[in-house]
Amino acid sequence: MTNTAPLPADLLIEPADEILIRQDLVLTALGKREADRLVQFGRVLDVHTGTWMDDCEVAIRGRRIAYVGPAGSFAGTARETIDRTHLSAVPGFGEVHKHIESSHLTPEHEAALVMPRGNTWTCEASHEFSNVNGPNNLEFWLTARRAGSPMKIFPLPGSAVPPTAYEGGGGHFGYAEQIGFLGESTMVAGLDEVMDWPAVWNPENPSYDRLWGMIQATFEKRGVVEGHGAGLRDLPSINAFAAAGLSSDHEAWTPEEAWDKLRRGIFIEIRPHSMPDIIKGLLERGLRDWSQVAFATDDRSASDTLKMGATDHNVRLAIESGLAPEIAYQCVSINPARHMRLTPFVGSIAPGRFADMVLLEKVATVSIAEVWADGEQVSEGKTFTGHLPDIDWPEWATKTVNVGRKLGAGDFAIAAEPGRETMQAALLRPFHWDDNFITTELAVADGEVQRDSERNITKFAVVDRYSGKGRVAKMFWLGCGPKTPDTAVGCTVAHDQHNIWVVGSSDAAMAEVVNRISDNQGGWALVTGGKVVADVHYEVGGLMTNRPAEALDAEMEKLYTEANKIDWLYEPTFSPRWFPGFPERLQFATLTCAPWRWVLVAPTDAVPEGFVNVQTGESQKVVW
Amino acid sequence: MTNTAPLPADLLIEPADEILIRQDLVLTALGKREADRLVQFGRVLDVHTGTWMDDCEVAIRGRRIAYVGPAGSFAGTARETIDRTHLSAVPGFGEVHKHIESSHLTPEHEAALVMPRGNTWTCEASHEFSNVNGPNNLEFWLTARRAGSPMKIFPLPGSAVPPTAYEGGGGHFGYAEQIGFLGESTMVAGLDEVMDWPAVWNPENPSYDRLWGMIQATFEKRGVVEGHGAGLRDLPSINAFAAAGLSSDHEAWTPEEAWDKLRRGIFIEIRPHSMPDIIKGLLERGLRDWSQVAFATDDRSASDTLKMGATDHNVRLAIESGLAPEIAYQCVSINPARHMRLTPFVGSIAPGRFADMVLLEKVATVSIAEVWADGEQVSEGKTFTGHLPDIDWPEWATKTVNVGRKLGAGDFAIAAEPGRETMQAALLRPFHWDDNFITTELAVADGEVQRDSERNITKFAVVDRYSGKGRVAKMFWLGCGPKTPDTAVGCTVAHDQHNIWVVGSSDAAMAEVVNRISDNQGGWALVTGGKVVADVHYEVGGLMTNRPAEALDAEMEKLYTEANKIDWLYEPTFSPRWFPGFPERLQFATLTCAPWRWVLVAPTDAVPEGFVNVQTGESQKVVW
Repeated sequence: MTNTAPLPADLLIEPADEILIRQDLVLTALGKREADRLVQFGRVLDVHTGTWMDDCEVAIRGRRIAYVGPAGSFAGTARETIDRTHLSAVPGFGEVHKHIESSHLTPEHEAALVMPRGNTWTCEASHEFSNVNGPNNLEFWLTARRAGSPMKIFPLPGSAVPPTAYEGGGGHFGYAEQIGFLGESTMVAGLDEVMDWPAVWNPENPSYDRLWGMIQATFEKRGVVEGHGAGLRDLPSINAFAAAGLSSDHEAWTPEEAWDKLRRGIFIEIRPHSMPDIIKGLLERGLRDWSQVAFATDDRSASDTLKMGATDHNVRLAIESGLAPEIAYQCVSINPARHMRLTPFVGSIAPGRFADMVLLEKVATVSIAEVWADGEQVSEGKTFTGHLPDIDWPEWATKTVNVGRKLGAGDFAIAAEPGRETMQAALLRPFHWDDNFITTELAVADGEVQRDSERNITKFAVVDRYSGKGRVAKMFWLGCGPKTPDTAVGCTVAHDQHNIWVVGSSDAAMAEVVNRISDNQGGWALVTGGKVVADVHYEVGGLMTNRPAEALDAEMEKLYTEANKIDWLYEPTFSPRWFPGFPERLQFATLTCAPWRWVLVAPTDAVPEGFVNVQTGESQKVVW
Repeated sequence: MTNTAPLPADLLIEPADEILIRQDLVLTALGKREADRLVQFGRVLDVHTGTWMDDCEVAIRGRRIAYVGPAGSFAGTARETIDRTHLSAVPGFGEVHKHIESSHLTPEHEAALVMPRGNTWTCEASHEFSNVNGPNNLEFWLTARRAGSPMKIFPLPGSAVPPTAYEGGGGHFGYAEQIGFLGESTMVAGLDEVMDWPAVWNPENPSYDRLWGMIQATFEKRGVVEGHGAGLRDLPSINAFAAAGLSSDHEAWTPEEAWDKLRRGIFIEIRPHSMPDIIKGLLERGLRDWSQVAFATDDRSASDTLKMGATDHNVRLAIESGLAPEIAYQCVSINPARHMRLTPFVGSIAPGRFADMVLLEKVATVSIAEVWADGEQVSEGKTFTGHLPDIDWPEWATKTVNVGRKLGAGDFAIAAEPGRETMQAALLRPFHWDDNFITTELAVADGEVQRDSERNITKFAVVDRYSGKGRVAKMFWLGCGPKTPDTAVGCTVAHDQHNIWVVGSSDAAMAEVVNRISDNQGGWALVTGGKVVADVHYEVGGLMTNRPAEALDAEMEKLYTEANKIDWLYEPTFSPRWFPGFPERLQFATLTCAPWRWVLVAPTDAVPEGFVNVQTGESQKVVW
């Protein structure tokens, strides 16, 4: 036969390479060209029919599957035959909606963490890095794969870049940028979660044209428009969401909501925290066809993944919640692959797809013995044995924190009007989703409005880390942060613009936190008694670290240990996921998407104090 | 509210219009803008969950659905409220793979025929017109919709243009053309059935690069690559087919074949002739998840549709074959829409989709009371009441038969070698799928090799209708055509190149048939006793007529009546669908795709006698 040139690298999906790879696979399947290996399994889950194929063999050529059939049926020869007849194979797990940034690991270390847990491909919701460095977003997500990491990352550019019209910094994505991304690489599956609901429905919202431009570009390039319907539970809103062309939602919290959305054609991506309820509720409602359902991790830290698992946890939880195992595996394979229009490449153990397989000792408990990806074994138990490229991330990834100067206590002072003994102050709590902010009266001392720790009132600030102008937005907050005096904590993970948030019982401690984080180019700092007692390095984009999960986890453990020595304020909020103790979830407190209303953002010319209602655009003084 | 400019026409999917339409739908769903009408149903089938929604109302704005919810729940007002509470609504039926050319009606008349039978959208397998006029192919399929026809046609350019490397005439599609089509309109869903299997697997096939170029272009533009796996039943071939990236097959004839293909990730499009067997077989095998299955009409004449129905027939047959009605309706709605990546537009009664609904009196028998499309009623019973545009098809559509000269009896003579009393002749039968042709000895008279009607041997010819050179390929055939002397029949529907085929008991009659067809610019002619006793006009592309189905049917009935007066040869063939009597299916006898081997094609410079093995490229003299 002709055409015996070496196979293309087959890392990213490149259409010109794709046909060379498939031309070769065809000949391999027909037995006219030698396979690289032939792996024999006790059984293989066919996710297209939802049935098992017993005594099955899979022929692999390059990184792909060439042939699937009963043991002994392959017409060709293979360089190597491998016996896994004691194991059951299911397709490599896919994440339909995940922010790898929330693992706080660069993609190659994410792969090393999640692949032993079954996850071989991820639709990256690249909302965070997009907001830190928009222009290099695609380059960032493809780098690890180009360097040989066995995990396939399909990036979806963030729809909310900037998150709202009231913020800015790292990037600006509109029609032109999205056309560019979708044209640049067929790895780009579509548009990441459209989350700025007021900018979708309200023609007067300043982000309206930018956002609809991205949607237009995605339709033009036959991509998938992902949604984010948090808090949209009434039928008019659900219908409007579907009518907008937002194809999916991962924000349903209750079975009613999931069912109402499913019935309007919205693909449902169930997250673990609401999974038991939703699965039970869907089963009770007689859902027979699960093809419009997938599971999504969304956000999970490396430390949590080490404890609870990755996609394997989601599948296990689904089975424990009463779902048939075969359907649960479909919800992390064919269902998300089909929704994302990626079935030629991933989502099943079938010819032409990447040879990504999870080898199970026990199906119902998701007991993973080995994971294979690109036709090779990449894990043994919980240990990653695949290729972990050593990437020297460039400066556009590692120099992203630019406060521009050292901050001092004065940067966090909130001045009182001359002669006042008290002033009125606006207050927020974390996850304060009310139409109105809270107001209270606070004492004035030394010309500054004061915290009131007796009433759980502290100070929260957001520091602009993009412009180099050292701009600080600050205001009083309720029920979060340190009660211990002279203490502050902060982080560059500050959804969604990822400026630096800091909360503290003294202005000096707040400044010290920000200065340390700046020096570290991102991550956490905890200051008490004038000293940095713990810091965590997110030196890539201020969001991630270029180290193994275990190294990061050790650093986080140190932070938790020191944080346990601090007294923390606490007030319940609207969010059921806001817990007493170290306020780690303040990372999400500066969100500006629905259902948020009043939010503190970094100062801009339009909103110099940073306190804005992101649904209406109204701004407000923080004290008066 | 702002943005109250008139809505775009919303006929073709135009991304820039799409966002204007959806922006308006969002406001309508929220009750902030008036709907055009609100239709109330007894129940609506939600194909996403496979369940019914009782007492349901659907708000329509423009051509789209804005809202779906329980009766009385719509938050807005509507100009008009319509009571259909005595009916059940299911989504407008979609054809996942249909050749409208086989109806022999132009698209606007196809719409008038099939829409009362439930079919509101069609993925047009534009293989036939592509081969007649490649450059104008897309323009042809979008014209009727642009003129306001309520049926949505999503064209997939033909993969086999020309059908094989041994033919040519109306077009040549490769990488550049396919990139062009997919870039020109988002109505183009992908690449039509890849059917030239030897050109897929064999690098030495002369169509290899052309065909893989089209596949590459389709991957590049995120389109769907449709397959055609006729006769591919062994596991190596099925695996190779899937590995090639061919995503679907409509050619499975048995449950085993369908099951084996499903399990390799191939989306199965079941045609009626094999449907009862396949559905029964899949149910027996425990198929639980039907999301990878759709129904396809493929080819059906207008006359047959008038008798048996359109997509409604397919659904009815599926239910009669034992499939749950809800699943049967999914197989003509969400399943094909999702496979074709068209879910934002068609496939369900859900917001954002075209308001296309089939209103049923009885669900299990598919008793259609009305069909709605684009938000308006388009049929009452079997009568089309929608807009039927009056299209003056341009010359590129109506002047496509160019034989270049009048033919005479001599053009069909097959000369003998001087001095021979007999000669050996190659013989084919219709649907002769053997590796070898048949040979026989035939008498010579007047210097010409003679037919032998005693042994069912007659003469068959293919006349080039593109080049204007009047080239004729002719040979002896077995068991088809007129036994009555001085009789011939022919047609321009000659899959896949659509030259003119003619079969006859005399050379003069054959010439007269071709001359009449040329004068008519396509269609059928039946000649006996020196007279044209019936002709049928396919004046558009030589394939279709710009008249209502009933007018065409009347002309066909005349042809059948005259044909019934003729004696017809008959021999069984490999095809179970080859019947005694008028050999109408000779339209398919000149196919060159798998599983065909030896075929008569119009003469080319490479194959001057036109007798060629399309799997190997070998050619052969017709007598020796």
